Amino acid sequence: MDNCIGHMRQVTSKMKYAPKRLRKAKLGGFYKLLFRWKGSVYKLLWREALVFLFSYAIVSLVYRFALNETQKTSFEAFCIYAEEFTSMTPISFVLGFYVSIIVQRWWDQFLSIPWPDKLAYDIAANVHGTDEEARMLRRTMIRYINLGALLTYCTVSKSVKKRFPSLDYVVTAGFMTEEEKRVYLEIPSDHPKHWLPCAWFINLVRKAVDDNRIKSAPAAKTIIDDLNQFHDNCDDLYGFDWVTIPLVYTQVVTIAVYTFFCACLFGRQYLQLGRKSEQMPDGIDYPSSADIQRYNVDYYFPAFTMLQFLFYFGWLKVAENLMNPFGEDDDDFEMNWVVDRNLQVSYLIVDHIYNLQMPLVKDIHYD
Amino acid sequence: MDNCIGHMRQVTSKMKYAPKRLRKAKLGGFYKLLFRWKGSVYKLLWREALVFLFSYAIVSLVYRFALNETQKTSFEAFCIYAEEFTSMTPISFVLGFYVSIIVQRWWDQFLSIPWPDKLAYDIAANVHGTDEEARMLRRTMIRYINLGALLTYCTVSKSVKKRFPSLDYVVTAGFMTEEEKRVYLEIPSDHPKHWLPCAWFINLVRKAVDDNRIKSAPAAKTIIDDLNQFHDNCDDLYGFDWVTIPLVYTQVVTIAVYTFFCACLFGRQYLQLGRKSEQMPDGIDYPSSADIQRYNVDYYFPAFTMLQFLFYFGWLKVAENLMNPFGEDDDDFEMNWVVDRNLQVSYLIVDHIYNLQMPLVKDIHYD
Amino acid sequence: MDNCIGHMRQVTSKMKYAPKRLRKAKLGGFYKLLFRWKGSVYKLLWREALVFLFSYAIVSLVYRFALNETQKTSFEAFCIYAEEFTSMTPISFVLGFYVSIIVQRWWDQFLSIPWPDKLAYDIAANVHGTDEEARMLRRTMIRYINLGALLTYCTVSKSVKKRFPSLDYVVTAGFMTEEEKRVYLEIPSDHPKHWLPCAWFINLVRKAVDDNRIKSAPAAKTIIDDLNQFHDNCDDLYGFDWVTIPLVYTQVVTIAVYTFFCACLFGRQYLQLGRKSEQMPDGIDYPSSADIQRYNVDYYFPAFTMLQFLFYFGWLKVAENLMNPFGEDDDDFEMNWVVDRNLQVSYLIVDHIYNLQMPLVKDIHYD
Amino acid sequence: MDNCIGHMRQVTSKMKYAPKRLRKAKLGGFYKLLFRWKGSVYKLLWREALVFLFSYAIVSLVYRFALNETQKTSFEAFCIYAEEFTSMTPISFVLGFYVSIIVQRWWDQFLSIPWPDKLAYDIAANVHGTDEEARMLRRTMIRYINLGALLTYCTVSKSVKKRFPSLDYVVTAGFMTEEEKRVYLEIPSDHPKHWLPCAWFINLVRKAVDDNRIKSAPAAKTIIDDLNQFHDNCDDLYGFDWVTIPLVYTQVVTIAVYTFFCACLFGRQYLQLGRKSEQMPDGIDYPSSADIQRYNVDYYFPAFTMLQFLFYFGWLKVAENLMNPFGEDDDDFEMNWVVDRNLQVSYLIVDHIYNLQMPLVKDIHYD
Amino acid sequence: MDNCIGHMRQVTSKMKYAPKRLRKAKLGGFYKLLFRWKGSVYKLLWREALVFLFSYAIVSLVYRFALNETQKTSFEAFCIYAEEFTSMTPISFVLGFYVSIIVQRWWDQFLSIPWPDKLAYDIAANVHGTDEEARMLRRTMIRYINLGALLTYCTVSKSVKKRFPSLDYVVTAGFMTEEEKRVYLEIPSDHPKHWLPCAWFINLVRKAVDDNRIKSAPAAKTIIDDLNQFHDNCDDLYGFDWVTIPLVYTQVVTIAVYTFFCACLFGRQYLQLGRKSEQMPDGIDYPSSADIQRYNVDYYFPAFTMLQFLFYFGWLKVAENLMNPFGEDDDDFEMNWVVDRNLQVSYLIVDHIYNLQMPLVKDIHYD
Repeated sequence: MDNCIGHMRQVTSKMKYAPKRLRKAKLGGFYKLLFRWKGSVYKLLWREALVFLFSYAIVSLVYRFALNETQKTSFEAFCIYAEEFTSMTPISFVLGFYVSIIVQRWWDQFLSIPWPDKLAYDIAANVHGTDEEARMLRRTMIRYINLGALLTYCTVSKSVKKRFPSLDYVVTAGFMTEEEKRVYLEIPSDHPKHWLPCAWFINLVRKAVDDNRIKSAPAAKTIIDDLNQFHDNCDDLYGFDWVTIPLVYTQVVTIAVYTFFCACLFGRQYLQLGRKSEQMPDGIDYPSSADIQRYNVDYYFPAFTMLQFLFYFGWLKVAENLMNPFGEDDDDFEMNWVVDRNLQVSYLIVDHIYNLQMPLVKDIHYD
Repeated sequence: MDNCIGHMRQVTSKMKYAPKRLRKAKLGGFYKLLFRWKGSVYKLLWREALVFLFSYAIVSLVYRFALNETQKTSFEAFCIYAEEFTSMTPISFVLGFYVSIIVQRWWDQFLSIPWPDKLAYDIAANVHGTDEEARMLRRTMIRYINLGALLTYCTVSKSVKKRFPSLDYVVTAGFMTEEEKRVYLEIPSDHPKHWLPCAWFINLVRKAVDDNRIKSAPAAKTIIDDLNQFHDNCDDLYGFDWVTIPLVYTQVVTIAVYTFFCACLFGRQYLQLGRKSEQMPDGIDYPSSADIQRYNVDYYFPAFTMLQFLFYFGWLKVAENLMNPFGEDDDDFEMNWVVDRNLQVSYLIVDHIYNLQMPLVKDIHYD
Repeated sequence: MDNCIGHMRQVTSKMKYAPKRLRKAKLGGFYKLLFRWKGSVYKLLWREALVFLFSYAIVSLVYRFALNETQKTSFEAFCIYAEEFTSMTPISFVLGFYVSIIVQRWWDQFLSIPWPDKLAYDIAANVHGTDEEARMLRRTMIRYINLGALLTYCTVSKSVKKRFPSLDYVVTAGFMTEEEKRVYLEIPSDHPKHWLPCAWFINLVRKAVDDNRIKSAPAAKTIIDDLNQFHDNCDDLYGFDWVTIPLVYTQVVTIAVYTFFCACLFGRQYLQLGRKSEQMPDGIDYPSSADIQRYNVDYYFPAFTMLQFLFYFGWLKVAENLMNPFGEDDDDFEMNWVVDRNLQVSYLIVDHIYNLQMPLVKDIHYD
Repeated sequence: MDNCIGHMRQVTSKMKYAPKRLRKAKLGGFYKLLFRWKGSVYKLLWREALVFLFSYAIVSLVYRFALNETQKTSFEAFCIYAEEFTSMTPISFVLGFYVSIIVQRWWDQFLSIPWPDKLAYDIAANVHGTDEEARMLRRTMIRYINLGALLTYCTVSKSVKKRFPSLDYVVTAGFMTEEEKRVYLEIPSDHPKHWLPCAWFINLVRKAVDDNRIKSAPAAKTIIDDLNQFHDNCDDLYGFDWVTIPLVYTQVVTIAVYTFFCACLFGRQYLQLGRKSEQMPDGIDYPSSADIQRYNVDYYFPAFTMLQFLFYFGWLKVAENLMNPFGEDDDDFEMNWVVDRNLQVSYLIVDHIYNLQMPLVKDIHYD
Repeated sequence: MDNCIGHMRQVTSKMKYAPKRLRKAKLGGFYKLLFRWKGSVYKLLWREALVFLFSYAIVSLVYRFALNETQKTSFEAFCIYAEEFTSMTPISFVLGFYVSIIVQRWWDQFLSIPWPDKLAYDIAANVHGTDEEARMLRRTMIRYINLGALLTYCTVSKSVKKRFPSLDYVVTAGFMTEEEKRVYLEIPSDHPKHWLPCAWFINLVRKAVDDNRIKSAPAAKTIIDDLNQFHDNCDDLYGFDWVTIPLVYTQVVTIAVYTFFCACLFGRQYLQLGRKSEQMPDGIDYPSSADIQRYNVDYYFPAFTMLQFLFYFGWLKVAENLMNPFGEDDDDFEMNWVVDRNLQVSYLIVDHIYNLQMPLVKDIHYD
């Protein structure tokens, strides 16, 4: 449980850092962005890059020291064949179209995050009364809203799930009472139950109308309409979690990129083509002079290939990162902060501010 | 009929598996996705790949053992011509644009699936009464909603159609009474009748207003507005089913991919070009040395061509898969689960939870 | 007039066929789609393809039999020049971007088709009364809605225009009375008058409120809001008809495709380049050996060029087909079916079903 | 002032032509579109094409007759260099992406044009009374709506601005009274004032509610909601006018196209490369035989380059044309027609038709 | 504080210039846009262009004068290697897809800017009374709306932040009273508080209903619905500021462009390849004649490379510019003008115009 409150603090302090980081980034020129580590392409790729370089070196060493002449010649022919393949693969289109779809989806997911502010305003405007029961009513209504959102996040977000591994944590954090937990667990349905707090909310609306705390039918309609929209947002998050981009598409793109760099392991090797053509075994044609040209300088380190690696693999990582924005990566949405902020702010609106009527004064432009 | 209930169980257990599968996929790196079978590009393509490889082998064997010198030379010229064609076909653009459109359409279809939750909330909030007739009223209203959706699914979804091959199954599953079936069949119209349950629903709304169970005009308006939106969603599903992507577009893309790999059958063959130029018959020019280069190593297995096959055909399969997402493929929407979940949850909201007013208590942050 | 009713039957039977056709297409693999005729790329293109092949043959024959040596050499140089041009034209991008826009627009047009179902529900729910005048009122209201839609279709759809060449046909089909026709024609405005039935509808709403058949202001609001949305849809169809994709864009794309294949007429000819270099006239350089290579086999039939033809021209035909989806092509929307279905179904909802209150019974899951 | 009424007539007759023109275009095949002049790519480009051809001829003549051998050789090297540049510039992508954005924006602008029909229906339905004051009230309300739209058009549309160069013309055309003009000018604000008629409209709504001409709060809500939407549309038009596509993007695209054709001026010249290699000055390498090949036929007229010119420049013209669709080009929206149509039709709805209650009769399908 | 009013004046005069500038741009042909400085690609790029040219010159001078023969040969081989890399990098796709996403986002941000006009109309229509308290009420309500927007702008816009560096400036400008500032600061929450003025607004709505200044529930609903939409817009702006395009994507694109021009620094150098092949050291193969061709003219200034620089870097600058449109660049939204305009216009609507009922007169078309 302590972990839960500690988490809140940690998240809050994290958030204070995050916006600053992002804002600074935008002000400078883009080139400053090249030297950032956090959330950067370097941080995401250094492992893969090392693996690639290591494999490249192994292949290179084997070719130079372990192969005999005949094997070398076969190897060289294979390298030229691989190089040809890399130049034929239209990897940039595939990535372009794929990433476009993923980015669109990522932003749609962000827009689907439900915020309780509107319902808090509705409740503050339409659920009247200053006695204790009215306060409890308003607070309970907005608590159900936050609970509905939280149960949704627990399904879709890994980080929220980690913070609230069971309903007990939800109860301890004040989103739910023990009684409510009991009822929740007793509902005879084995489908997800994130719709339940909204149903409780509806019951409260009916009760408030009966008790004449909600004084008119249009007022109730406002609240119900916004509840439905809130529930829609929760359902959208569920939908994004339930139906993902088809595996086939992701596999096709991933295969394209991995194959490309497997081919590069060979196709971008330095080849000692100027060796000794007279000793060549029969039956294997020697590469023509046009091809020899490409392989005539030995730089040991495949600099431009590494840049292509950064470039294509980085693009793939964009997709991988945005695929599940509710995780714990550097660029993922801070859902735990959202949970805390929403509970606090919505309580403030329906309760604290409700009773804090500002005096009506003339503004300075009042003639 | 047993089949129907058995199906429910089967679907439910399937669903329990499905989300887990998808979630795991997202957490690991993309490379893990390469080794998945279910819903994978390998599962979708192994048949086509075998056909291609078999044809490739046949062509290769005929070339090597069945043709005489003159025929071989003609064959080689044709292969070079075919290879040239493959490099000219901009297959990746066509696929890119086409798949973008299909993916957009696929997601729009998902968003068009009608959910009864909002109407259930509306009914729970606005249709008052705890007597038996009120319960029957609320249950019947939401049942009509579920029936309207089910009739729509029966038209657009192959798997729902399979589960409910006739109206008798719909009656048995409790979506419809015998009396309603009779009226449904007697309606003098030969157009689809999925709008009928909504019309019955409207009649019930009118009755509920007359009986003062719906107590205000705005309350009725809420229900009618959401019904109209629900009906819109059903109509959208119909629209997607009625008006498909024009056949021409699909044919153009399919022809492009099939032609490409037909050309590859020849263009990617190993050619014995170094044979004996002096025996060549007159009238046919021998390929120049630049072209010879490409064909000088015999790998028997066309590895990179197979990767291209996986790549382009996989992309086409993405389109084919998403074209009709209401079928029975691995990646299709589980509409039977949707049917069951919606009936259960909406009954719970309008009936079970309706009578389960939670006690109003102070939350733990209450000062 | 008989033609009108005959048309209804014909359309209905056509429709019964159409969905089946489309559904079957989706279930099989894509390759089945390659052998379909109706709505296919072959049906759309066989005329153009014959023209192209014929021209190709003429050019080929002239080259082989009518030209002398000098002319042949000039011709060959021109062919090589043309071939170079075809390889430089980025025809696939232009088509890709253009077709994307057209497809988007095509679907937006489909979504703009106004359906009267929602207004029928609104009327059934809110316009009370079982006497004869109430029936007439409800029927007339929904008739005006259908009339408004029909007048819109008459402007935008060629097939509806054909069925209803004048207002007399509209009157005969029961959408309008003679009296209404007279008033319609007398309205002192020379702008399109599809907004008129909606204005009549509004008058009826006012009358119904005055007569207390619409019993509350929110009820009237529901009807008026949905009328406005219905009118918006009609206006959108008008807009799509009035403002088309700019001619320039279409011309640019069409010029690109036609030019490409004009260049192919020459660039893809078999050239007898191996003839006799010693007899060449001075001043004209003979093509180098690299170019000779491409032309060294004579297949008589330009198989791969025809596939490209199918491919690019088919893509252009997709655009042409979707440009005006309210016509009479195989893939166009069946607007006459829409007209019939809407009139019938909306009458059923506001009149037949209105009086057919289903008895309230317990469903089978009722505990 | 006469000019104003004359304009109306002229616009009306223009419109009668325009739709016919567009419709015909769609019915025939696309190839008919190639021979159209109005709004065509030829009409838009003939000036630029002449400039290009003239420059091309000048360059050609200078090369052939004014340069000596050394200069010719330098010139030829430069031409080859330029040709290489043209083949490297990915002009079709840039144009594709840019034009996609512009087309999207163009259609969004069309959809933002505010139509008063909905407000006219609202007023006809909800503002009761047949006495003279009620008529004046309805007419004045809808007049304010038309005035608000007109003031917006005057800002964004060049052709409307031309027709109404000052408020006097607006008064003369009957959109405004002298008194209103006076008040309009006296409002102490130097920001655009298109929001003012809507504020007057709101005052009238309040007055109508007070006078019990608008009889219920939901009725007033309908009108106010639609007014707000109308105002939103006006603001959107302002927004499109205020914030244009960033200049940088347009410059980048324009530079790309202009540079491409500047390079073509040289790169596509016929070069006399077969001249006399032995006289070459030292220090300048002579182009290799592969390059010679491309320049070996002298056609005087750069036919295919002109097609590319039509093609790329036409694409750029699409963007230029759609950039400001409220101008006076052939393809621009006919805003003056919109102004006239809207005033007439909205007056008809709220006044003429209001008093023209159609008799309620049985339709022909009435059993 | 004076700075604040001075700023208003300065902004206003700036605005007067800005629209004119933009409008003129659209009227002339696109080619005029090539010679504009303000907001142009030249202004954005001259620094980077100078750096590139300077580096290019340094590299060139070192090659020509500082290297010995062996080093020169190595350098030349490296240059050819670099040139090959530039031709392989598909920089235009990456930029195309990336800029498309950025442009979409930029316009969505513009559409999210909240305007108070609708709420001002709602207040003018529904908050009745001409006494002093009613005036204060209406003014205070709309002031809170403007304050809510201002607090949002202060977070997302650098230029607004500069003008209002602390709440004191907000108070001085009349958006807030001292009392309100005190309460604002005392709210026990460390999350952003831009939701607070909206909560105050809600309190005023409740008070106005209680005092019978808002006379009906639908009237209150109108105001609350539009407030919620206004708050949504503020939240959207927050969202765009909080969640930016992932850093990885931006880095990938930036790396691609920078790498491309680093490679150009070498790959586009003039190489003295015709020097003296006989003196070549062993072990390094001399470039073949095909490659020599490309480097055989020395133009000193890399003209076409500079055009490519303008082109690709300009495209990148488009993205950089649109990334944060609330800054102080030439093309950014003038948020300070928005602040001033909104306060003035909304005060005018709810107060000045409210009391200025226009007399009802017959329009000139009144029969």
